[in-house]
Order: sequence, then C-alpha cells, then structure tokens
Amino acid sequence: MADTVLFEFLHTEMVAELWAHDPDPGPGVSAGSRGEEVGATTGQKMSLSVLESMGFRVGQALGERLPRETLAFREELDVLKFLCKDLWVAVFQKQMDSLRTNHQGTYVLQDNSFPLLLPMASGLQYLEEAPKFLAFTCGLLRGALCTLGIESVVTASVAALPVCKFQVLIPKS
Amino acid sequence: MADTVLFEFLHTEMVAELWAHDPDPGPGVSAGSRGEEVGATTGQKMSLSVLESMGFRVGQALGERLPRETLAFREELDVLKFLCKDLWVAVFQKQMDSLRTNHQGTYVLQDNSFPLLLPMASGLQYLEEAPKFLAFTCGLLRGALCTLGIESVVTASVAALPVCKFQVLIPKS
Repeated sequence: MADTVLFEFLHTEMVAELWAHDPDPGPGVSAGSRGEEVGATTGQKMSLSVLESMGFRVGQALGERLPRETLAFREELDVLKFLCKDLWVAVFQKQMDSLRTNHQGTYVLQDNSFPLLLPMASGLQYLEEAPKFLAFTCGLLRGALCTLGIESVVTASVAALPVCKFQVLIPKS
Repeated sequence: MADTVLFEFLHTEMVAELWAHDPDPGPGVSAGSRGEEVGATTGQKMSLSVLESMGFRVGQALGERLPRETLAFREELDVLKFLCKDLWVAVFQKQMDSLRTNHQGTYVLQDNSFPLLLPMASGLQYLEEAPKFLAFTCGLLRGALCTLGIESVVTASVAALPVCKFQVLIPKS
C-alpha cells in the first residue's frame, strides 16, 4: 500500500529540496559519511552532509526500535547481518543481496536493485546523479550501527544503476 | 514494525533541518497552504512554505498510487471522505476522527491525536511549536486533492495538543 512508498516519496522530495539550493550539478559518484565526494561542489557537499546527518539520526532511532531480542550479538558480523536483513526489510521491504568482509573491519553490503535508485533509468546514463540518493542511507547505516555500539565510516558507490555497494569501515580501537 | 515509524522519524528530521536555518523561534499557531502564519518570522514562513510544497508533491504522488477503483467519486464530499479514510490510513495508520462541512466548500477534518504532534507533551505547553509539524500535512492534503482534480486551500490549527483541525477550503469556480 501507499505507506511503503511514502518513505521513498519523502526521501525524493528531501533530496530535491536540499539540491535546489545548489544549482550547479557537478559529477560525483561517491557519497558517504566522512568519505570524500568526488567532483562535488561545496554546496553539494553540504547537502550530502545534511542528508547523511538526517539518515544518521533516523538510523539511530530505528536502531532503538528494532526488536530487542535479536540484539544479543556475539560478533560484529552478526550486527552487519542484522542490518542486511532486519534494518533493510524495515526500510526497503527487501533484504540486502550480499555481504562480504575481509574479516578485518571492512564490510561490503551490496544491493542489486537499491530502491532509492530504481526511479532512475538503469545503466550509466544518470550515474552522476546517484550520490545524492545514497547519502541518507549511508547515514542510516552509520546511525543504526552507532545505536548498536559500533562506530563506523560508511560510504557508497555505484558502478551501474541500480546496483549499489555500501562499504562499512569499522576502525579497530 | 519500524517501517510505520520511518515516515514519522524522517518527518521529524526534515522539520528539524529546515528549522535549523532559522534560529529565532517565534510564536505562531496557524500553518498551512497559502494561509497566514501568525507571528512567524520570514525564515520560518519560508520553511513552512518549503514543508508545505514537499507535502504537496508527496500528496500528489500518493493520490496517484491510492487504489483507483475507489476514485469514481460522485461528489466533493466523497473525495473528502476518501482523504479522511484511505489517505490517512496510508500515511498515519489511522482514520481521521471527524469530518464536518458547511456544504458550501468548507470542510473541517479533525484528528484527536494527530501522530505528528504526539511526540510533544499534551496541553498548551508546546503549542507554539505546532505549526511546523502541520505544514507538510497541509500540503499532503492539498496535493492529494489536486491529483483528484480539486483545487483547494488547506490550513491547520491546534487548540490543545495533540488535537488538530485541518480546514479545507474549495473555492467555487
């Protein structure tokens, strides 16, 4: 029903509104928390940062609301699996397609048809438009991880729409 | 589950983000599309207007997605009933509590516990904070009505939290 698309509509409007303040669209295919934005203008970087912050706080709040019984994680990998399954289903009504790790604090979460990129045509045509549709979700992942006690750096990259890879870096303390 | 609160979290962040640009909170208890905002500063009026516009476009999009078979309305009142029931359930998981009309193009839709006001304490305490939590929804109603072929002016008022009245004015052409 409509409530499943409500989030997507609202996200689209939010991106459009924040982008409206910066009329110069520059190329940039990487977006994320504390990551660099290739080729983005200063205004765009600020918009990406605002989107990421909003995502972070929503992620924190969602992290607190997700079922507590599943939160007795033994390992970092369990937390990441939780994000790929429970968080993704809660937000996007689907699971993440794959999760890979180097077992040294780097995780790559891949969604082969990321819902927030689906409205765009497939392929390479609108690739430079992608970063603004990823920043909120990078923040969302970082916020949920933060609620679960893990500090992280989350970036996203797109090689071909609508496939999206989120890279989660968990610095060893 | 979490997806039902996702919209509310995102709405909260959106309001906070737009309000952050205007550090001077002034009193103002009326908000809405093309309506006056009592005592609001220029920056706040702009934020309300931006929120209303975002609501409008989401309302338009939702209006297009809601089940078509119910859209064969004979009368204006049927459209308003549709908003009170189907649209409200899609967005807020509840129906509007009452609908009144003077049968001359003015409709008053009352929600006795409007979800976007619920996080605030009840009573009069935070009444002046209410308008920013109503602007998006005023736009949502106006957008959905627009998709259904009806031009309108939508305003909202709060006498005591969390009770909210939305007034829909449909000018006779």
